[in-house]
Amino acid sequence: MTRAPSPELLSALEALLGPKGFTDDADTMAPWLTDWRGKYHGAAAAMLSPASTDEVSAIVRLCAEAGAAIVPQGGNSGMVGGATPDVSGTQFLLSMRRMNKIRSIGRDSGFAVVEAGVILEHFHEAALAQGLRFPLTLGGKGSATIGGLVSTNAGGTQVLRHGTMRALVAGIEAVLPDGSVFHGLAPLKKDNRGYDLRHLLCGAEGTLGIITAACLRLVPAAAARRTAWIGLKSPDDALLLLRQLDGAIGRELEGFEIVPHTCLDAVLRHVPQTRAPLGDHHPWYALVELAGDNGDTLDTALQAELAAALDAQLIGDAAIAKSDRESEDFWRLRDSISEAERAEGPAIQHDISVPVDLMPSFIADNAKRLADTFPGVRALSFGHLGDGNVHHHVQPPIDSDGAAWLAAHGQAASRLVYTHVIELGGSISAEHGIGQMKRDILAELDSPARLAALYGVKNGLDPKRLFNPGKLIA
Amino acid sequence: MTRAPSPELLSALEALLGPKGFTDDADTMAPWLTDWRGKYHGAAAAMLSPASTDEVSAIVRLCAEAGAAIVPQGGNSGMVGGATPDVSGTQFLLSMRRMNKIRSIGRDSGFAVVEAGVILEHFHEAALAQGLRFPLTLGGKGSATIGGLVSTNAGGTQVLRHGTMRALVAGIEAVLPDGSVFHGLAPLKKDNRGYDLRHLLCGAEGTLGIITAACLRLVPAAAARRTAWIGLKSPDDALLLLRQLDGAIGRELEGFEIVPHTCLDAVLRHVPQTRAPLGDHHPWYALVELAGDNGDTLDTALQAELAAALDAQLIGDAAIAKSDRESEDFWRLRDSISEAERAEGPAIQHDISVPVDLMPSFIADNAKRLADTFPGVRALSFGHLGDGNVHHHVQPPIDSDGAAWLAAHGQAASRLVYTHVIELGGSISAEHGIGQMKRDILAELDSPARLAALYGVKNGLDPKRLFNPGKLIA
Repeated sequence: MTRAPSPELLSALEALLGPKGFTDDADTMAPWLTDWRGKYHGAAAAMLSPASTDEVSAIVRLCAEAGAAIVPQGGNSGMVGGATPDVSGTQFLLSMRRMNKIRSIGRDSGFAVVEAGVILEHFHEAALAQGLRFPLTLGGKGSATIGGLVSTNAGGTQVLRHGTMRALVAGIEAVLPDGSVFHGLAPLKKDNRGYDLRHLLCGAEGTLGIITAACLRLVPAAAARRTAWIGLKSPDDALLLLRQLDGAIGRELEGFEIVPHTCLDAVLRHVPQTRAPLGDHHPWYALVELAGDNGDTLDTALQAELAAALDAQLIGDAAIAKSDRESEDFWRLRDSISEAERAEGPAIQHDISVPVDLMPSFIADNAKRLADTFPGVRALSFGHLGDGNVHHHVQPPIDSDGAAWLAAHGQAASRLVYTHVIELGGSISAEHGIGQMKRDILAELDSPARLAALYGVKNGLDPKRLFNPGKLIA
Repeated sequence: MTRAPSPELLSALEALLGPKGFTDDADTMAPWLTDWRGKYHGAAAAMLSPASTDEVSAIVRLCAEAGAAIVPQGGNSGMVGGATPDVSGTQFLLSMRRMNKIRSIGRDSGFAVVEAGVILEHFHEAALAQGLRFPLTLGGKGSATIGGLVSTNAGGTQVLRHGTMRALVAGIEAVLPDGSVFHGLAPLKKDNRGYDLRHLLCGAEGTLGIITAACLRLVPAAAARRTAWIGLKSPDDALLLLRQLDGAIGRELEGFEIVPHTCLDAVLRHVPQTRAPLGDHHPWYALVELAGDNGDTLDTALQAELAAALDAQLIGDAAIAKSDRESEDFWRLRDSISEAERAEGPAIQHDISVPVDLMPSFIADNAKRLADTFPGVRALSFGHLGDGNVHHHVQPPIDSDGAAWLAAHGQAASRLVYTHVIELGGSISAEHGIGQMKRDILAELDSPARLAALYGVKNGLDPKRLFNPGKLIA
C-alpha cells in the first residue's frame, strides 16, 4: 500500500487540472470506484481526468516524485477488477474519458489515430461515416474505451478473421512510469529497433504505461453478411467444418461459434421470443457468419460448402438466415446463453483457451474429469471454437444447494479446470485479463520461468510499482 | 567486458556437452567469429553447441553462476554484427546449429514446431512435402536459421501479404537468463495472461532469451504465380497502384517492389544477360507478384486491373511474365540492383522504414535534402514500397573520389537520412536489427523515453547483462 498523498501533491494536481480535471467529491467518484458487476470496491484520494497527453505526463511526474500510485480507468467495463483502486484511499483514479478525440481517420491509408477515452461505439460510427469499419466489437461497446481495449488486448466476436486488439493496433502513444511520453503512433510495417514496446504495452493492463492514444487499422465496410445455424454431432465435427470453410472461404469467414444443445435448450426455456432455427435436435450447433462485398457471392459459397458438408455427413442440417432480422435472431440465441444459464442457477465461469485443434478433446475430457471428481456436476462449453476459446461454465449437481456447493467446491473445481488448461499449454485468461481477480491464481499456477519474466519486466519499467499496483503482478 | 571464464567453468561445460558440443580449437571456431560480410571480428573462450533445450538451460545456469557472457548464433548471416562476440575472448559463442530438428508439422492444424538451428530452406522443403508453405523467404535462406530469423524478426520479400517473422511465430520456447525454460510453444489465438513474452523475445537479438524452438504458421502451398513489370511516373503513382491492387486482389498480392530507372539502367549495364521488360523508358517501375490457387483467375484479375490502370493513365505500360522463366528474369532485375550499384562504385546503404503513405514524399524530399547539403550527391531508393521500407543508397558525387568522399561525409549523410526518417516517425532499422552496427546511433538518435524503456526491459530480464552483451543496448 502506498502512502496517503500529501496536501501539497493534491494542490499541485488540482492546480494542474482545474475543476473539470480534478475531483475528490465522494458522490462524483462513487460510480467509478466499483466495477460494473459490483464485485470490486475501492477508494481514491482523488479522481484525475486529464484532457491531453501533456496533462497525463505532468500527473505522472508529480505522482512519481511523491511516490503516489495511479490506477488508470476507461469505461469501467472490465471483467477482472483491473480498473478499480484498492480500499486504502491512497491511490489516484486516473480517468481517461476526457481524452476522447479521434485525431484522424485516413480513408486512403486505412489507419485512424484515436485517443484513449474514445468509446468503441463512437469510433465504429466515425469509421462507418468514411466507408470504413473497425473490425473489433463486443458487448460493452457502448462504454468500453479504446485505451481500455488496448490495455486489455480485447477480443470479441470477430477475432477469427481480424485478430484481437493486438492485431489491430499499429501504433501506440503512452506515458511511461517516469512521466516521459513514448511516441509510437506511426504505423510501421517493418521496425527492428529492439524490443517491441507496442506489443508490450498492449495487454499490460496499465501496469507499464498509460496509453493515451492508438493508431488503429481499419478495413472496408462490409456490404453483405450471411449467417447460418448448423446442427452437428460433436465439437470434432465442428472443427472439421471450420477447417473446410476456412480453406474455401477463409477471407469472408468472420464468426464460428459452437453451442451445445443443453445451452440452446436453456435459452429456449428462459428467454422470451426465441425459437430453434432447425426442426430436429442436434447434440451441437455451429453459428457461422460470413462478411463480404457481395451478398450473392456469399450465398453461393455458403450454400455450396454446406451442401458438401451435408453430403459428407459432417453436418446434420443447416439453416441460412433469410433476412437481417433472422440473422439477429440466430445471434440472439448465442448471446442469450449467459442470461439463460443464470436463470438455471449459480455456476462458476471460466474464460480459457487452448490450441484450436485440442479444443474438442479438452471439452470432452474436461467434462469427464469434473464429473469423476465431483459427481453430478455439469460442465458447459460454448463460444469461439475458431479462437480455441470457449466460455466454460461449471454447474453444481442438480440435487444440491447450488450456492452452498459452490462455496464448498467452487475453488477446487476451478483449479481442476485451470490445471487441465495448463497441461495443454493453454491460458487461464483468454480474453478478460488478470486484474485483481486472477492475480493470485496466476501466481500460483503459472510456470516460475514465465512469472519471473513478468516480474522482471514490471521491475525494469516501473521499479516503484506506482502504475496500477496490485493488478496482474502479485 | 566480462571476466575470463575459469578453468572450472570450461571443464564443466566440456563435461556437459562432450566433444561434439564443446570446442576451443581456434581453426574450428574461426569461421564463426567473423560475420559473413567480414565487417566484424571477435574471439571466444569456446564455442558451445548444445543438442537440446536441456543442454542450453544447463549452459546458461553454469554461465550465470560464473558471470560468463553468452553470444547466441544461428547461420551467422546477420547484417549488423549481432552474432559476433567481442574481441575480449571472454565470451562464449553459443552455436544453435545442432538443434536442427523439425519436431512436428501439423498438416491439419497449419502449425509446425521447429528447433532454432533448422535452416530456413530445409524448413521450406519439409513444409512443401506436406503441401504447405512457410511464407517467409530471403536471400540467405540457405544459411539463415529459424532461431536467428525469430531473434531478428526477419522480413524478406513476402512481408506485404504475410507479415514479418513476428506475424508467423505462434509460439516460442526459450531459455531465460537464469537458465529457466519458458515453454510457450502452444499456439493460442487468445491469451491475456499479462505481458506478451513471445513478441518481446521476437526481435530481441538474443539479449533477453535464447530461442530454442518456435511454433510457426504455415499456409497452403501456392499453385500459381504471376509476375508483372510495370512502367510508371512516380512513387506516388506506384502507391495509388498498390492501393488499387490491394483493394481488388489483396489476398493474392504477395509482392510490390519499386525500382527507379537509374537502378534498372545500372543493372542492364553491369549484369550480363539482362534485358528491359518494356520497350520504353519510364521514370519508375513496379514489380508485382500474385500467388494463388488458380493461374487463370490470377491472369484475369491482373489483366483487368492493369487495363484499368492504363485507362486511368496511372501506369504507362506493363508486361506480364509469360513463363516461370520470364518471371525469374523480372525478379533478377530487382535482385541484381545491389550488385549493379556496387559496380558503380562505393555508396552508403540504409535500411529504413516510414509509414507507407509517407514513402513517396520521403523519397522525393530526402533526395532534395541530401543534394542541398551535399552538392552532387545522388540518393537511390528501391524495394518494398508496400512495407514502407526501401533500400536507400547514397552515392558520392560523380566527379569525387568516392571512398574519400564517404570517409569525409558518409556519417553526416547517414545522420541526415536518419534524422529525416525519425521526423516522420520511421525506423532507422526496418529489417536488419541493431546489433553492434547501429547500437550507438540508436542510443544517440532514438527518443529518451523509448531508450529508457528498452534499457528497463533489459535490466529487468537480464540484470547481469550476460546475454549478447554489447548488442542492441549500449
